[in-house]
Amino acid sequence: MPDERAPMWYIGQHDSTRNDADTNSVSHQAHNAGYDLLTIPITTAHFHDRIINLVEQYENGTDSADRQVLPLVSPLMPVDTTLDPQDTSSALIATTASWIDLGSKDALVAHVSRHVFNLEVQYAAFCGVSNILIKGPIEGSDIVQYSRAILEALAMGAYLQLHIEVPMSGELEDTGESEYTHLAEFSTTPVSDAHVEEDAGGDDEYISWDKWDVVRTLSNYHPRLSVALELPRQVPSLSVQSRWFSEPLRILTFPRTSFLRNAKGYPVLSKAHQNLLTRYMRLRYAPWLLLSNVDDLSAATDASPSPEPTPAEAVSKARNSQKAKDPFPHLRYLRHLQSAQPSRPALERFGQGYQDYLQSPLQPLTDNLESITYEVFEKDPIKYEWYERAVALALQDLKPVIGNREAIIAVVGSGRGPLVARSLLASKQAGVPVKVWAVEKNLNAHVLLQRRAMRDNLWRGNVTVVKTDMRAWNGPVVEGAVRKVDIMVSELLGSFADNELSPECLDGVQHVLHPDHGINIPQSYTAHATPIATPKIYGDLFGRPGGLAADKWEIPYVVMLQQLDFLSLDSNISNAEVQLPNVQEAWAFSHPIPNTILSQAKARAGGSLERGGAGGAVGGDGHNEHNSRSCTMQFKCTRRGMCHGLAGYFESILYASRNSAKRVELSTNPVTMADKSKDMISWFPIFFPIKVPILVPDNADIEVKMWRQTDDRKVWYEWIIEASETTKGRKRRLGMSELHSSRKNGCIM
Amino acid sequence: MPDERAPMWYIGQHDSTRNDADTNSVSHQAHNAGYDLLTIPITTAHFHDRIINLVEQYENGTDSADRQVLPLVSPLMPVDTTLDPQDTSSALIATTASWIDLGSKDALVAHVSRHVFNLEVQYAAFCGVSNILIKGPIEGSDIVQYSRAILEALAMGAYLQLHIEVPMSGELEDTGESEYTHLAEFSTTPVSDAHVEEDAGGDDEYISWDKWDVVRTLSNYHPRLSVALELPRQVPSLSVQSRWFSEPLRILTFPRTSFLRNAKGYPVLSKAHQNLLTRYMRLRYAPWLLLSNVDDLSAATDASPSPEPTPAEAVSKARNSQKAKDPFPHLRYLRHLQSAQPSRPALERFGQGYQDYLQSPLQPLTDNLESITYEVFEKDPIKYEWYERAVALALQDLKPVIGNREAIIAVVGSGRGPLVARSLLASKQAGVPVKVWAVEKNLNAHVLLQRRAMRDNLWRGNVTVVKTDMRAWNGPVVEGAVRKVDIMVSELLGSFADNELSPECLDGVQHVLHPDHGINIPQSYTAHATPIATPKIYGDLFGRPGGLAADKWEIPYVVMLQQLDFLSLDSNISNAEVQLPNVQEAWAFSHPIPNTILSQAKARAGGSLERGGAGGAVGGDGHNEHNSRSCTMQFKCTRRGMCHGLAGYFESILYASRNSAKRVELSTNPVTMADKSKDMISWFPIFFPIKVPILVPDNADIEVKMWRQTDDRKVWYEWIIEASETTKGRKRRLGMSELHSSRKNGCIM
Repeated sequence: MPDERAPMWYIGQHDSTRNDADTNSVSHQAHNAGYDLLTIPITTAHFHDRIINLVEQYENGTDSADRQVLPLVSPLMPVDTTLDPQDTSSALIATTASWIDLGSKDALVAHVSRHVFNLEVQYAAFCGVSNILIKGPIEGSDIVQYSRAILEALAMGAYLQLHIEVPMSGELEDTGESEYTHLAEFSTTPVSDAHVEEDAGGDDEYISWDKWDVVRTLSNYHPRLSVALELPRQVPSLSVQSRWFSEPLRILTFPRTSFLRNAKGYPVLSKAHQNLLTRYMRLRYAPWLLLSNVDDLSAATDASPSPEPTPAEAVSKARNSQKAKDPFPHLRYLRHLQSAQPSRPALERFGQGYQDYLQSPLQPLTDNLESITYEVFEKDPIKYEWYERAVALALQDLKPVIGNREAIIAVVGSGRGPLVARSLLASKQAGVPVKVWAVEKNLNAHVLLQRRAMRDNLWRGNVTVVKTDMRAWNGPVVEGAVRKVDIMVSELLGSFADNELSPECLDGVQHVLHPDHGINIPQSYTAHATPIATPKIYGDLFGRPGGLAADKWEIPYVVMLQQLDFLSLDSNISNAEVQLPNVQEAWAFSHPIPNTILSQAKARAGGSLERGGAGGAVGGDGHNEHNSRSCTMQFKCTRRGMCHGLAGYFESILYASRNSAKRVELSTNPVTMADKSKDMISWFPIFFPIKVPILVPDNADIEVKMWRQTDDRKVWYEWIIEASETTKGRKRRLGMSELHSSRKNGCIM
Repeated sequence: MPDERAPMWYIGQHDSTRNDADTNSVSHQAHNAGYDLLTIPITTAHFHDRIINLVEQYENGTDSADRQVLPLVSPLMPVDTTLDPQDTSSALIATTASWIDLGSKDALVAHVSRHVFNLEVQYAAFCGVSNILIKGPIEGSDIVQYSRAILEALAMGAYLQLHIEVPMSGELEDTGESEYTHLAEFSTTPVSDAHVEEDAGGDDEYISWDKWDVVRTLSNYHPRLSVALELPRQVPSLSVQSRWFSEPLRILTFPRTSFLRNAKGYPVLSKAHQNLLTRYMRLRYAPWLLLSNVDDLSAATDASPSPEPTPAEAVSKARNSQKAKDPFPHLRYLRHLQSAQPSRPALERFGQGYQDYLQSPLQPLTDNLESITYEVFEKDPIKYEWYERAVALALQDLKPVIGNREAIIAVVGSGRGPLVARSLLASKQAGVPVKVWAVEKNLNAHVLLQRRAMRDNLWRGNVTVVKTDMRAWNGPVVEGAVRKVDIMVSELLGSFADNELSPECLDGVQHVLHPDHGINIPQSYTAHATPIATPKIYGDLFGRPGGLAADKWEIPYVVMLQQLDFLSLDSNISNAEVQLPNVQEAWAFSHPIPNTILSQAKARAGGSLERGGAGGAVGGDGHNEHNSRSCTMQFKCTRRGMCHGLAGYFESILYASRNSAKRVELSTNPVTMADKSKDMISWFPIFFPIKVPILVPDNADIEVKMWRQTDDRKVWYEWIIEASETTKGRKRRLGMSELHSSRKNGCIM
């Protein structure tokens, strides 16, 4: 089984008054106190004073004629910074000045801020720092201008990771050194300068996200740009929590205000904060936790430690020091939460390491994993159990039809035989004797099947192994005569139901099924989709070769979606506690199909043109046209967001009894999975990307059109997403993707 | 001078009842009647009847269980089409069936329509037809589905040009063969099926354009897709006219309803129709005119003509046949309008052939054209005349300052000397004697200048030629002493004012200008911009190698913009008769600049760091920082549209008198050009593209941010466009371009 160890929590210490400390010495202090990470300002109080002095002199001493020349911010001198290349380590996060305003609408403030920022980032990069923490845009700041500065900074070092500190909603609690003069104080541009105040309506929980969205978009989803999210006093709505969950979270900062005091006076987090933390810490790359301006580091020794203490040692150290008035109660509390984390759901444990990892569509997940974790797949706690139930139910239904004879079951595409084994168990369970034909074209699996048919007591005499492509099989032969199959069992479903060509395969073998009472398991399956925001996957695709021009955008990917936000919620289910997406059905397939369709399809094969009777010409191309599908799906989006594509799922009725209300179903659809097949692990969702994200405003509608296209050789998908809104009964287009098509990468039939 | 011949009008004949005619024979008839073009249906009435029969049989004869199998549309038989490869010529426009509904929401109708359409297009392509006329989507049709069919058809032949016939607003007048059964009649899907009727609000003039916009967008601005615009009874507003003007118009169709009858009963067009026609026929590629269901062709002989008649012969033939009851009065009327077209404005004549042609930014227009039409440029009827006036005005102002001595004029970058000559003329005009220094670094121009200084009577003794880069010049030497320049004349402006580095060049030579009274001509210049829709240019860029991924999107292009639509109109000026764009000022430069700036700039050159007095450190990089600029511009857009980028212009004050209200100005800004420098031809506008067009809804705001960036080596531009709207005092983002930057293609200083 996959690794189930609880992931490590990396906890850091941030002190905004730590301006002139010796980096080496505070590093030892933090380490000894049990912290994994430490922030350090790039520049000193001296530098701040020098710059403020420069601006004051300029303001007082420059007559207006000379105002065209903005003051010169000269390079850093040794006294301006305590950072040194020798002191830097991976445990160090450098912080830029919190007293600048990169997006200032005042020319002087913007100019000086930009120069200060550039000097800092360049010097940090020179020193080999890899993580830089930067305050997000302050209130009234021009976001585009701010973003431009970030975009420029990203180019200053090939290894720099920039973390933008933003609040979940509203404004940052921790705005930096309170005794410092903020450059914004020198701004002569009135705050309400813009003709529309972007921040109007402080009740809007998404304003902070709006700003981040601009920064991230203008930086082209840069892989070295991430969010340092400041936890608020009050945890905002689930929607906002989900939104931030979908963004590239790398740091969570805990200001003093995010903690409560328990009865004994110790700092604790509210239940809502704890749930949030649990959710965020399950991300594939769990964010670092940064305790901000709590627990004074000077209580720790700055002696150089010899070996690296393990996390456990650190905890015990913190616990020991607690006995005598613990100087690090916040750290100790987080370590406590870390050890108390609940275990994760089955699919998450199973998929660990695969989250948001796009799988090559030419080698579907099942193929990939079979080579390394075949055992695991056959141990899916749900899937095969459900198949067994379905076969048993079908056998019971067939009993009156077939009388006392043995039921004939064909497992088409039987692999190593798990469905053969389950069919035999189902036979026992239902009390209906069976003969099973195991049809498999894979040479290697065929060896195992035959071996098992000879050696396994249950199998021996009951299982016939046939080595053939199912479409070329003539059917079971009993005592020299070809017989029809009563139950045909297959496991050909893909993440989007029909995407591994189950319809085409089953059409091709339907001729062996009993025309009157023959049963297919699965009986039917449906494809489902919903629009999502997934900056992580979009950024991943964007960063691959070819930019916006390549085929990579026109491929549906199998992927264990994790870091996403659903743009449309099911209004019947969602409330403050639970939110389920609005997932809609795209189309359905059921088996067996009417024989008239099969004969029509046959007539159309190969482009032959033969004259019928009165009906004129018949024949031609298009023998698989009956398996093409199309749909239009409507989604209401209450809260604005960025649409990056569609998440796709499937549902399948393995068997619904003709004689009772019993039915056996599989589902990966997040709305129904818990009911239908909780803890099933065999399928990840599918993702249909779009090339250019669509901005979906509040209360907009998303319309999705999808096609399953087919010609005589291939099957592929097409999809298009449109955002609009309806005012006064009139539809107003707001944005539309191009028509995406996987034709070039379609499945060969 | 460029070719001024009136462009040829190609007029065609369309008859929707021409279903089974012999192509060869009607071709001769049309030719003999004086038509240049002729439509011919791809399929016959027999084919129509066969398909309707097929659908009726299916409707009546198929029980609902078999409805999964849609009827088979079998290939064309000889009786289904009169088209033959031997009959096709470039004069032939094939028409597809007008009785299908490619966007039908009914599965049966959609299926049959798609098959009919594909058979037709494929056969036409096989026959070598290059132009196909296709009815636009009918009312209630699904536009995305319709567009998908068009996109597929574009791939059916490498030479097919598809013309989509759409009305200017509302619905098509001419919907096709009235006696035919339309497939839409078989639709069982209620028309009001969609939860929102897209066509609600019939008063909206843009609904037809909306549909076309989807077709064009989903076809990725395909170069082989164009509009066949049907002229309406009533010509719609100027805005709608401009919108269609900006789209790829290749055909204008004239149904019977677009004509009036004059007093004598002859067909004529209203004045509004005539104006529209005049405007549209001035497009670089004038659209073809298609007379639709007027003037019966059978009146013409179908004898094979020997030589091609010239247009004049065709006109005279039509005129002759008129004597005896003219059977082609509509054709004759259009020929009459053709010959009565007014001549075009100077800039349009001059730019003929350059419309919407993107000029390489590394070789600006002036460079390109100098080699082939240097003479033409010096004959700009306005530019040099205005320079002469400006110098004369400046000399008059200087008279009291310099007393009786000769004024010293320096023409920096004097080329072949046009400004030298104008300065001498201005001297005469103002009655102020001058000495002129002609500074030029171009070796070849230097030869001409020297020759002229020796031979020209006016020049001899008054003009000194200096071969040097102006930035390295020490100034004029008179009797062994360096003197300061009174008037410095230059022509360094580019299409966007400062884009050919006029500020940097003039800074570099300012040291020779008299510090107290020295005058620069031009004194100042401003860059202006406005957002535009320009599908033609967007399609051109999109079609170049690299798709959306290349640098081509981040370059400002010099281009004679023609086929555009302004998205924001000047509400103070625009009315039903005239519409002027809302063009805003981006930034300004003026000369000379304060000396404090020059000395600061010098201190910053080369990154030197030297200690000043009390002010702390000075020096560093950024010696051209004072020439960086940025701006935020707001544009209100009343009517929706697609934004493809920005059109850029300039204005310049060559000289504004200190002593009077007189001022001499140049402008390419469409709002002020007529007032300031009408008929000036030396500059085309500039175009800043964006990679992904932004859909701008009705009453939205466009915010444009631009930067003129500079480092120590280069100058470049950055631009970003955002669409939003303001409701209840709250800004709501609707779309945003990425930050575009021409840094990689910036101008080297």
